[in-house]
Amino acid sequence: MGNLTPHDLTVIFLSLGVLLGVARLLGELAQKLHQPAVVGELVAGVLLGPTVLGNIAPGLSAYLFPAAGPAAVALDAISTLAIALFLLVAGIEVDLSTLWRQGRVGGMVGIAAIVIPFLCGLATAWLVPQALGRQPEADPLIFALFFAIALSISALPVIAKTFMDMGLYRSDLGMVVISAAVFNDLFGWILFAVVLGLMGGGPPGTGNSIALTTALTLAFTAAMLVLGRWLIHRALPYVQAYTRWPGGELSFALVLAILAAGFTEWIGIHAIFGAFLVGIAVGDSSHLRERSRVIIEQFVSFIFAPVFFASIGLRVNFLTHFDLSLVLTVLLIACVTKLAGGTLGARLGGMTPREAWAVGFAMNSRGAMEIILGLLALEAGIIRQRLFVALVVMAIITSMMSGPALRLLLRPARRRRLKDVLSSRLFLRGLRAASRRGAIRELTAAACEVSGLDPESVTAAVWAREEALSTGIGNGVALPHARLEGLREPVVAVAISEPGIDFDAPDDRPAHVIVLVLTPADDPSAQLDIAADLARLFREPSMFERTLRTRSFTEFRALVSAPVETRSA
Amino acid sequence: MGNLTPHDLTVIFLSLGVLLGVARLLGELAQKLHQPAVVGELVAGVLLGPTVLGNIAPGLSAYLFPAAGPAAVALDAISTLAIALFLLVAGIEVDLSTLWRQGRVGGMVGIAAIVIPFLCGLATAWLVPQALGRQPEADPLIFALFFAIALSISALPVIAKTFMDMGLYRSDLGMVVISAAVFNDLFGWILFAVVLGLMGGGPPGTGNSIALTTALTLAFTAAMLVLGRWLIHRALPYVQAYTRWPGGELSFALVLAILAAGFTEWIGIHAIFGAFLVGIAVGDSSHLRERSRVIIEQFVSFIFAPVFFASIGLRVNFLTHFDLSLVLTVLLIACVTKLAGGTLGARLGGMTPREAWAVGFAMNSRGAMEIILGLLALEAGIIRQRLFVALVVMAIITSMMSGPALRLLLRPARRRRLKDVLSSRLFLRGLRAASRRGAIRELTAAACEVSGLDPESVTAAVWAREEALSTGIGNGVALPHARLEGLREPVVAVAISEPGIDFDAPDDRPAHVIVLVLTPADDPSAQLDIAADLARLFREPSMFERTLRTRSFTEFRALVSAPVETRSA
Repeated sequence: MGNLTPHDLTVIFLSLGVLLGVARLLGELAQKLHQPAVVGELVAGVLLGPTVLGNIAPGLSAYLFPAAGPAAVALDAISTLAIALFLLVAGIEVDLSTLWRQGRVGGMVGIAAIVIPFLCGLATAWLVPQALGRQPEADPLIFALFFAIALSISALPVIAKTFMDMGLYRSDLGMVVISAAVFNDLFGWILFAVVLGLMGGGPPGTGNSIALTTALTLAFTAAMLVLGRWLIHRALPYVQAYTRWPGGELSFALVLAILAAGFTEWIGIHAIFGAFLVGIAVGDSSHLRERSRVIIEQFVSFIFAPVFFASIGLRVNFLTHFDLSLVLTVLLIACVTKLAGGTLGARLGGMTPREAWAVGFAMNSRGAMEIILGLLALEAGIIRQRLFVALVVMAIITSMMSGPALRLLLRPARRRRLKDVLSSRLFLRGLRAASRRGAIRELTAAACEVSGLDPESVTAAVWAREEALSTGIGNGVALPHARLEGLREPVVAVAISEPGIDFDAPDDRPAHVIVLVLTPADDPSAQLDIAADLARLFREPSMFERTLRTRSFTEFRALVSAPVETRSA
Repeated sequence: MGNLTPHDLTVIFLSLGVLLGVARLLGELAQKLHQPAVVGELVAGVLLGPTVLGNIAPGLSAYLFPAAGPAAVALDAISTLAIALFLLVAGIEVDLSTLWRQGRVGGMVGIAAIVIPFLCGLATAWLVPQALGRQPEADPLIFALFFAIALSISALPVIAKTFMDMGLYRSDLGMVVISAAVFNDLFGWILFAVVLGLMGGGPPGTGNSIALTTALTLAFTAAMLVLGRWLIHRALPYVQAYTRWPGGELSFALVLAILAAGFTEWIGIHAIFGAFLVGIAVGDSSHLRERSRVIIEQFVSFIFAPVFFASIGLRVNFLTHFDLSLVLTVLLIACVTKLAGGTLGARLGGMTPREAWAVGFAMNSRGAMEIILGLLALEAGIIRQRLFVALVVMAIITSMMSGPALRLLLRPARRRRLKDVLSSRLFLRGLRAASRRGAIRELTAAACEVSGLDPESVTAAVWAREEALSTGIGNGVALPHARLEGLREPVVAVAISEPGIDFDAPDDRPAHVIVLVLTPADDPSAQLDIAADLARLFREPSMFERTLRTRSFTEFRALVSAPVETRSA
């Protein structure tokens, strides 16, 4: 710690805290608006960087985010570490076996979605490099190759997340897109590593040999994906059997990733490649336990990744380097070529036009990967700031487009989550009624006030259902419900009754938590989704006790969103 | 990233990877030897630092761990961040409510175990400061206060871990010690913060006002423990209800800790105080979910903490600064005063002599806390390197003493874990037998070969038990067993039968996993412990399928040590 003064440490902690805090806040906001979190995290950096804060409060900006000096060095190191760990997680998510399982269609999409953007990008950058803002001193071939790769790459994490949100991740369409994206990513990153090698970094002391770097890159990639993968798969049981759990597996993965990052940095490509390849090798082993994966993933996604993505906004002024015509040019080429490639590949693979367009829009989202690639190119001096800004804007816009486009094209059956239909106005903390009929009347009265339905007919419908078969599901929970004509969205009202009400449950316990579920008549799955959510939540006995102790709607919603688990010994 | 060259990044990744790897390896080794992991982590640093690696390979040492320059700055920043996060976790573990619950005994122990070491330390350091290696330019009062605090502090994490390992954490004795250690820690750290304030760091631009720093320290502590605690408790349900889970809670805790660390660094005490206080406030809320706690704790304990503790060895040469007489002096004063204080307090509180000695030895372990305190004092120029080395050695030895001493004094009933009694020689991958009797004979034959028992009588005993009540427990698992005279340690043999053998299980499924458990006749709980472990493990259906697919003993042991969990949707 002798290298850092108290002032440096103060700045490091404060800047890190502010960066992470704002990034996470805006990331959550983006998710609420059904957008990828990375969009919010990038905006946080833009707000805190030279673009906004540097303009309106230059003193504060210079204090919190100095451009040079020990604090700047420290922040750079931490964000580089963060991005390496993010690539570790991205690698873990890559499932090599889907590549083979999807066979012809996946291959078609994967190849077409790379070849078309790649060739168009190469041609454009070769023929009109100035229009794209090439650095005058940059090698034309390297610049053209980079631009071609930048158009070809897809954002596996964003695509995977979008499909998961729509419940289509395990569908045929989802698997085709994921396998094609894995192929795109692998191919694009390896090619980019070779391009970086072509620039002649090379291992120190080897006289900048391009051939050596390229050979080392390809050899390391092959070794990691074959030998490394096999060794890791063999080693994991030993780690699990003979070290503390899950800490042993956790450090095993991280140590490998960090060392591989150091190695790839040494051979003259970037640290992230090593971490990415280790991620693929580790994630591929069937021995890797879900629990370790979750711990690494959560910590990296919610702590390291936001710090990195926000830090991008600190490096560049997005206002002064914003060049509208360049942004539009890049966006247009990117969308047209990728949509064409993805859609064409899917059509050739035998998909319907609607499905093929969905594949095209999914492949089109560039997300985080594009931005990382752009940043490396910026630092390597391949591109200028205004092209970097254009690439970031393109990455954001293509990512924001894909969700809505997919929903429009595929109209996925939405899975209703209990937490999404709760409302503070329909949370009755102390139910007055003492009978089943009274409870239902009280709940429907509240629900009808909010939704504008007719209380009489709703009560009659719920009561008719209740008389046919009582809705006490046991564990102190009852679930009166009805499907109603003319209702557009599910309405859920929650009541908590201290004395409890007999709902004729199989375990004979009175119901203390009574949840009225009204769903549209033409949406039969909504009722089942919500009931399944409730049953799952209240399987854990302590959830029921906690619910009885809640003092506000927020506390109840917190229990539903962040369920209590049994504490393991 | 513009502030770091590829060479810097290579060094940062390689040094971090090597440091973490060696630290975790030796940490695991220490645990295998029933010692705290921190002992191994510290030794890793000593091996990699100037003491060993710097001596035998100065070139490699200077490459990996440069003393100055960007890579050194980055490593310092990362280890400072690591220690702040470690204190966040230490704070989360502090349970303020135990302070009140333990009442008189806890209070007696807490006070006596602070007052006696504190007064003795103060007197020694005041009267013979040279003998303790005071820096000539250091203020005598500050030095004496520091030394007094160094003797008074206990290592809550080490103590808690020792008691948990012995299954005594929730016992009366355990709670008394924990509450006294919490009291020690809180008091010691706040006092040390005030001492750092006395040295007149002070917030920048305030003219080094001692009074201001002290006032800010106390005000911040009080505010955090009262207002902060209340606010965090109120805020957590909002975080859980309206952000992604568990990421929202995770970042909430970390952002608060990092910002508070920046604030305490700014007021002129150290960053770790802020993180520690936030930890206490967050950990105190009953809303904090177990899952977030586990993710933070695992990541910090297995990634950040080892990096920090190993980095200590990089800073100091433990050989050249090792002063035997000083080490013995410090060790003697530390042990005598703390043992006296802890034991006396416990006796006054009404404990038996044996229990009181156990309390004394538990309170005596200084562990990580002492080392952190010493490092801060070293950096603040209060102590010299040779006293720092003596304090580290004292911390290690007192921590290593407490486990064996407690086991000797309390003779806790050991809880047998299945994984601790497994042996590769007693793992029969393909059972030949087709009948229940044959299976038992095959298993006892193997067990007797290893343990030297008589096969005939053992088979007879197991079969007699089996005939009395069949031991198929369902889910494809059977558990034949017997208690044997003359056996000293449990012997467990595991067999896997592909075709399955009828063990008359309640679910009528044949047993594929057959575990023979032979336990000493005079140790009735061993059989129950192991059976409970097995039943718990095989409650998860995928465990059974995985067990059938294991190809080696290591894979089976990995399943037992790192159980598979159902993947949540």
